Amino acid sequence: MLLKFTKMHGLGNDFVVFDAISQSVNLSPAQFQFIADRHFGIGCDQILLVERATRLDADFRYRIFNADGGEVEQCGNGARCFVRFVHDKALSPKTEIRVETASGIIVPRLEPNGQVTVNMGVPRFELTEVPFIAEKRALTYLLGLEGKLAEVSVLSMGNPHAVQLVEDVDGAAVAVEGPQIESHPSFPARVNAGFMQVLDRGRIKLRVYERGAGETLACGTGACAAVVAGIMRGLLDDEVRVTTRGGELIIRWEGEGHPVRMTGPAVTVFEGEINL
Amino acid sequence: MLLKFTKMHGLGNDFVVFDAISQSVNLSPAQFQFIADRHFGIGCDQILLVERATRLDADFRYRIFNADGGEVEQCGNGARCFVRFVHDKALSPKTEIRVETASGIIVPRLEPNGQVTVNMGVPRFELTEVPFIAEKRALTYLLGLEGKLAEVSVLSMGNPHAVQLVEDVDGAAVAVEGPQIESHPSFPARVNAGFMQVLDRGRIKLRVYERGAGETLACGTGACAAVVAGIMRGLLDDEVRVTTRGGELIIRWEGEGHPVRMTGPAVTVFEGEINL
Repeated sequence: MLLKFTKMHGLGNDFVVFDAISQSVNLSPAQFQFIADRHFGIGCDQILLVERATRLDADFRYRIFNADGGEVEQCGNGARCFVRFVHDKALSPKTEIRVETASGIIVPRLEPNGQVTVNMGVPRFELTEVPFIAEKRALTYLLGLEGKLAEVSVLSMGNPHAVQLVEDVDGAAVAVEGPQIESHPSFPARVNAGFMQVLDRGRIKLRVYERGAGETLACGTGACAAVVAGIMRGLLDDEVRVTTRGGELIIRWEGEGHPVRMTGPAVTVFEGEINL
Repeated sequence: MLLKFTKMHGLGNDFVVFDAISQSVNLSPAQFQFIADRHFGIGCDQILLVERATRLDADFRYRIFNADGGEVEQCGNGARCFVRFVHDKALSPKTEIRVETASGIIVPRLEPNGQVTVNMGVPRFELTEVPFIAEKRALTYLLGLEGKLAEVSVLSMGNPHAVQLVEDVDGAAVAVEGPQIESHPSFPARVNAGFMQVLDRGRIKLRVYERGAGETLACGTGACAAVVAGIMRGLLDDEVRVTTRGGELIIRWEGEGHPVRMTGPAVTVFEGEINL
């Protein structure tokens, strides 16, 4: 079958996006793997399918697949690309779109400047929700690493995060400490390890060692977790510009019990057509 | 400017190919870099431009550029993709095409089975031509590595190669010995390090640690060099199937003074359009 697709990225987290409404898209795990392959296929981190909603209270449904054909949950970078795609392809005139994802309904919004704001959900701090093994909930925790104690904030943004402050994020030992934190026995489901440098009350620099993926260009939930951790510790205001290796995000959070809002870019790189 | 392109690969060595005859292609180094970027751009090892010949004795000219905008010399994988592209786009009815490259005229041929044969030139063994520092020309040479002596054949296929025999290529210490051989003081211009397992007189398995690039999926000149080395050592016949991590090549060589002929696949992955 000949399929049209669009290559997009959000801060370097890149997607092959198929309009599965105006064309029929039925892909096998082998085809997902082929599409994602950067030398033999199109090349991407994930494949995003835009589909008709299956619920009356949603405008669209989207699904995100890894290279192995496994479906993944909501993803901030994917949600931003989805909105931009729907707008650019004139699939909807709306700028706020109700979309059905594997993690429920989300309502990303296209901003007048072309950026997209996504509600990333309410951060969770309860130990069993992260999950994290400790005596009781605290503002920060000490993690024993090889030859070092790391002071981390621990929370869940739907996935677990451990965020530590560093003086110089570019020189941080992400490659050494990242895997130690990721697999620390206190995190039964492992954890994403954030390294945050606070520049001032409205700006941080961030690197994230992602669970199962290593250091990535930009981690949306990692940016949310870092800003939440910084606000909880009294270091940051409620709107923070986060600089990652892939680019910049704006994170807004009004405090415990409130959802985190993430604003960032979604870029169309090229249009393609492939025979599968 | 809106440019049409084709994404192709030869054994996983991948190219973004532009028809620079029917559209005007003027790219800056920053644009080459953007095109080659696998997360923010299209993603490829190299960019290939198909142009009108500047000489009367050629049908076309092609040029290959690295991500940094630097022009590179003839490349077997690129030559195969070029012929396939010219044929698929109906730019020429010929199956043997005289093409002007940065290294002179080559005449790749499209085979009836869709594979492409490229004349890779005459292998050179003279020490100054490789270049290689040794007392005198020999069939093999001993190279001192860390804690080991490696017995290598040394020759030039336009670029320098040192090829050693291994019993099990999948278990070969390519990542350890590759960089040691590449930077061995006997090779003033460094060298590509080949690791060849002879299966029988017509089949080898090969891995190559490429100069300046590390181990790659498939190295065309490395496959030629390995087969030439094996024939010189009396281990191989004049037509050999070479299995690399990226796929298979057929190498033919009639002996010293003759050119090496390489036959292999060239695959079109998708068609695209990008605004640059």
